[in-house]
Amino acid sequence: MSENELSARERIVVGAADMLSRRGLNATSIRETAKHAGAPLGSTYHYFPDGKGQLTAEAVRYAGDRVAKGLRRALRQGPEAGLRAYLNVWRSIVVDSDYRVGCPVLAVAIEEPEAEERSVALQAAAEVFDTWQDLLAASLREHGTPPEQAAQLAALVVAAAEGAVAMCRAQRTTAVLDAVEAQLNALVRAATEGR
Amino acid sequence: MSENELSARERIVVGAADMLSRRGLNATSIRETAKHAGAPLGSTYHYFPDGKGQLTAEAVRYAGDRVAKGLRRALRQGPEAGLRAYLNVWRSIVVDSDYRVGCPVLAVAIEEPEAEERSVALQAAAEVFDTWQDLLAASLREHGTPPEQAAQLAALVVAAAEGAVAMCRAQRTTAVLDAVEAQLNALVRAATEGR
Repeated sequence: MSENELSARERIVVGAADMLSRRGLNATSIRETAKHAGAPLGSTYHYFPDGKGQLTAEAVRYAGDRVAKGLRRALRQGPEAGLRAYLNVWRSIVVDSDYRVGCPVLAVAIEEPEAEERSVALQAAAEVFDTWQDLLAASLREHGTPPEQAAQLAALVVAAAEGAVAMCRAQRTTAVLDAVEAQLNALVRAATEGR
Repeated sequence: MSENELSARERIVVGAADMLSRRGLNATSIRETAKHAGAPLGSTYHYFPDGKGQLTAEAVRYAGDRVAKGLRRALRQGPEAGLRAYLNVWRSIVVDSDYRVGCPVLAVAIEEPEAEERSVALQAAAEVFDTWQDLLAASLREHGTPPEQAAQLAALVVAAAEGAVAMCRAQRTTAVLDAVEAQLNALVRAATEGR
């Protein structure tokens, strides 16, 4: 695969992630995604022979990896810095888009798969949530939080951020993100004070 | 409006809430909703002359009122009982549907409105989230939690439940709901122990 091909393919994946985060899974068609990415429609079938499920799964993984990379970097300064960076990512996404953009992983998680079997996109969403939880839990454990509490608190952080982003989009204020951040900060501080 | 008319109209609203909670806003068309409710297509235009936005807003309010009613009743036994009932509602919805159904209010919150102005459905979603937060916060205050902490904790409960439901649907396990419940239980207990 040449460099040009790689970047055209990537452009389509990035565009799909953006569309998912704005309009949801059902409104994200391959045709619209190609248009959004400025790519000819044929190229999406060339790059994603398994169709929309494949493209959606890659878009979910792309978004998941981007957030995980920033989270991993911030967690080097400890769980409090990691939490701050994680919530700041979501706050920026919501505020910079004037409350029009949210989380593409959540968008995929909440729509019933068409086929009986579990879709590849839903599987990718589950893996992204797992990764974010695992990164936070590992950092909490390294800073003295007992394993069960670390896992629970990591799940609470990811769940609360996802819910808060959606609520902020409806309420058109960051009040819920602010409230969630204050509560989670206090929890993470208390859970790592023993160290 | 006769009783028959009322119940046919209600059937369409209930059906729309169900479709939103399974398939999201974009996949919920008036045509599909009428079919889902066993109503002739013409009746939806008769009952909802302002179209899909009006029907969606009513479906969101219907779902919101149902959850609020159960929450209000449980909160008479205090915030811990209220939290337990609130999370149980979401757990039942997710588990009984084999991870296919979530929250219709969230589904409406995360899709970009088509028009420039704020849609009536998004406004209804914001009001439902406000109502759930206000009910929890009032009960916490009545049981000794200082107002600012009560508001933050109520926001955390609603946000975490919304996020957890979506994550459980992707992960096909209730692990995140279980973790969130353990953490929130401890928080609510600590916040009301002063009384």
